[in-house]
Amino acid sequence: MTFDLVVIGAGPGGFDAAVDAAGLGLSVALVEKDFLGGTCLNRGCIPTKLWLGATSAIEELHNQARMKVASGEVTVNFAGLQNRVQKHLAGTRKAMGLQLKKLGVELVEGMGRLSGDHRVTVAAADGERTLDYKKLVVATGSRPIFFPGLEPDGECVLDSDMFLSMEAMPESLIVVGAGFIGLEMAQVAHRFGCRITVVDAMDRVAPLEDPEVSATLASVFKRWKWDIRLEERVAGVLTRNGKAELTFQSGDKLIADKALVAVGRGPVTMDIGLRKAGVELLFNQIQVDDYLMAAPDIYAIGDANGHIQLAHAASHQARYVALHAAGKVEGPYVCPPVPSVLYGAPEVMRVGMMENEAFLADYDSTEVSTAQLAANPMAQAHAATQGFVKVVWSGGKVVGVTAVGHDVSRLVTPAAMIVHQGWTADAIHSIIFPHPSLDEALLTALTAERKKVQ
Amino acid sequence: MTFDLVVIGAGPGGFDAAVDAAGLGLSVALVEKDFLGGTCLNRGCIPTKLWLGATSAIEELHNQARMKVASGEVTVNFAGLQNRVQKHLAGTRKAMGLQLKKLGVELVEGMGRLSGDHRVTVAAADGERTLDYKKLVVATGSRPIFFPGLEPDGECVLDSDMFLSMEAMPESLIVVGAGFIGLEMAQVAHRFGCRITVVDAMDRVAPLEDPEVSATLASVFKRWKWDIRLEERVAGVLTRNGKAELTFQSGDKLIADKALVAVGRGPVTMDIGLRKAGVELLFNQIQVDDYLMAAPDIYAIGDANGHIQLAHAASHQARYVALHAAGKVEGPYVCPPVPSVLYGAPEVMRVGMMENEAFLADYDSTEVSTAQLAANPMAQAHAATQGFVKVVWSGGKVVGVTAVGHDVSRLVTPAAMIVHQGWTADAIHSIIFPHPSLDEALLTALTAERKKVQ
Repeated sequence: MTFDLVVIGAGPGGFDAAVDAAGLGLSVALVEKDFLGGTCLNRGCIPTKLWLGATSAIEELHNQARMKVASGEVTVNFAGLQNRVQKHLAGTRKAMGLQLKKLGVELVEGMGRLSGDHRVTVAAADGERTLDYKKLVVATGSRPIFFPGLEPDGECVLDSDMFLSMEAMPESLIVVGAGFIGLEMAQVAHRFGCRITVVDAMDRVAPLEDPEVSATLASVFKRWKWDIRLEERVAGVLTRNGKAELTFQSGDKLIADKALVAVGRGPVTMDIGLRKAGVELLFNQIQVDDYLMAAPDIYAIGDANGHIQLAHAASHQARYVALHAAGKVEGPYVCPPVPSVLYGAPEVMRVGMMENEAFLADYDSTEVSTAQLAANPMAQAHAATQGFVKVVWSGGKVVGVTAVGHDVSRLVTPAAMIVHQGWTADAIHSIIFPHPSLDEALLTALTAERKKVQ
Repeated sequence: MTFDLVVIGAGPGGFDAAVDAAGLGLSVALVEKDFLGGTCLNRGCIPTKLWLGATSAIEELHNQARMKVASGEVTVNFAGLQNRVQKHLAGTRKAMGLQLKKLGVELVEGMGRLSGDHRVTVAAADGERTLDYKKLVVATGSRPIFFPGLEPDGECVLDSDMFLSMEAMPESLIVVGAGFIGLEMAQVAHRFGCRITVVDAMDRVAPLEDPEVSATLASVFKRWKWDIRLEERVAGVLTRNGKAELTFQSGDKLIADKALVAVGRGPVTMDIGLRKAGVELLFNQIQVDDYLMAAPDIYAIGDANGHIQLAHAASHQARYVALHAAGKVEGPYVCPPVPSVLYGAPEVMRVGMMENEAFLADYDSTEVSTAQLAANPMAQAHAATQGFVKVVWSGGKVVGVTAVGHDVSRLVTPAAMIVHQGWTADAIHSIIFPHPSLDEALLTALTAERKKVQ
């Protein structure tokens, strides 16, 4: 038979594309070489959130203890936690498998590659299988990338996959790369009592964020006694005498039990016959048009097309390609504002344009308005008052929101709606924010005095 | 001088009315007999949130311990907590006072009453003072009410004000009234190890909520070994031999260290000259027209008008009357959907119409769609998976949302926007929900199969 749709990769993008397409009545095969759920479920967002959730009492206790309100000790059993993570992942994969079965999606396990006109060949454990398709979705995701000298060895130098598979937390950790992945993992290690050193070549932590957000994060981390080394170039990192040894280009060295290298992720697009099928690649990213198409009848979504490395962006693209493949939409893909969140304590949220982006787009009308979390009763209740919410305005409309601090992830969905809808000052009071709530910090920022960005 | 606006009561409604009016350029006097911030700040929402925040590590630890992931003990020092609460309240009141001063609002401390044509007399510690006004805002708030036999004695039978002022947590507590106030306070007591009995004449806890929400709450409370006595009529409760003794109409008795009576709150509208000024009262509630006016040049907002006993509803009304008094709006008051939240763990949120209300309004087109929290990775991460999100549809539009479970308060602001905007199925994918997040449970509920309400 010829499938209406074949999907390569069962991460958030590919899985959702298969499910959505099957829900629309298409015959679908989903090819996966590893586990259902991809990086996000098995080696990324979900295990990290389980780690953060399991250790959140440590952070809450710590904050209340600083206020002389609480005392005691919370111990997280790392082996027990890892066991729970594995059980959760297995349970989620099983539920995903059942969902595919119920929808009639054929799951084909093995490495898929484009092998001819409208054809994919899957190298499975029990031999090769050929799948003919009318349309194809490439959702092959991404993997950690490394600069020369920073390659993980699996012993003391780890990538994020290896870090999540550890059997015990180290007592000291060097994190190379101060982006979201490194910072979330470092936070968890910190809660286990691990001494943290963060190294980045940029001049600030979380370099994709608003500079004031980065400064607040750095201030919190320094209070936690993290050693933060910025604008430092690393020559290499390797295992020596059972320790991770990092050498800067200056010749200085750092030694710790483990090093986590989290300098970025790159698309998985090699050796699957993409170029031969007419797909264009640029720095391994699949080039797509306004319809998320990489070649006739071939879509590419998620991390593989390199637009935005976030699961929910992939899922949103997935829904579009399913509808497009089924002939239910004809226009180009429209991407709403994509929210981004760093979890932990503090959290960071961002959606839409940041101050500098808005200023570059229209330097004449860019303004910002800000609210400090110290004035918020929920931040006070959790004794975690460092942080702020910042609203970016352009032409009198909200074009972006960012925040750092206790529980600010809860602002991201309303903020995404506000940015998408381009609220003006008049729209703010069209809804009622609950009191007391962290959400009110967003209201306070929306109604605060605006300052022109210079 | 004659003030443009005199406000009686400095709770969330009155304070915001004064601040908003001053911001619009009006000359304003604010009359308060007690503390700035009213019940919400001093004896209600804020102290309870500080209690819940301070004890949240206990709940987080408990959940992870059930999963064999964490162990240990967290002790909250109640005296230290009460000290912190008082410091926080004093600091907030001070900041509010400074805000009034900065805006030129005259704070007049004492009991205010309407004493003649466009005149308020304030009985202050140092004698009487007369304030002439062009417009008046009555924002006198509410106080706990009691049925005969349930009056607090301040010894072992307490109202919520007295409960919040305790110097130590009791070892056992009877809560009379299973509404939000009683349940939040009972949760805190539970975290301190207190044995809880909840008594209500209704057939379910949280009787204003969706019945399935009530059932989930009851199920959680029973797992906590709470003794829940529903459809039980109380004859009386009193202090005997240093204990609280509750007698049912059946003659059965309950004994505990303390009893908290939280059966409701009623407006504070007596003995301040309202009727004489032409204001109509019904069950002590000030009757207002579509402009929130109770008589010519007299507005009434917040708990005093009995519409909605929630601080944020009062604040929203406050803004309207300030604008109306300043001549900046002319049309009637429009009340957006008012979110309501029960904090703690589990939390409850509600906004818009519930299933039964929507069915009564249009029995032909009411549908519900639901998502269980068990499938949500953030609920899983916090090992708190009991609960659900329910969306109520009418005529193909979202008219209400409710939820119960871990951290569901974070859904209430986006839900308030969705209900206000009357989203149809097509609107859902106009925004992107972050992954992973508790917010996705709302997305799942919005896209779940809808069932007709019968």
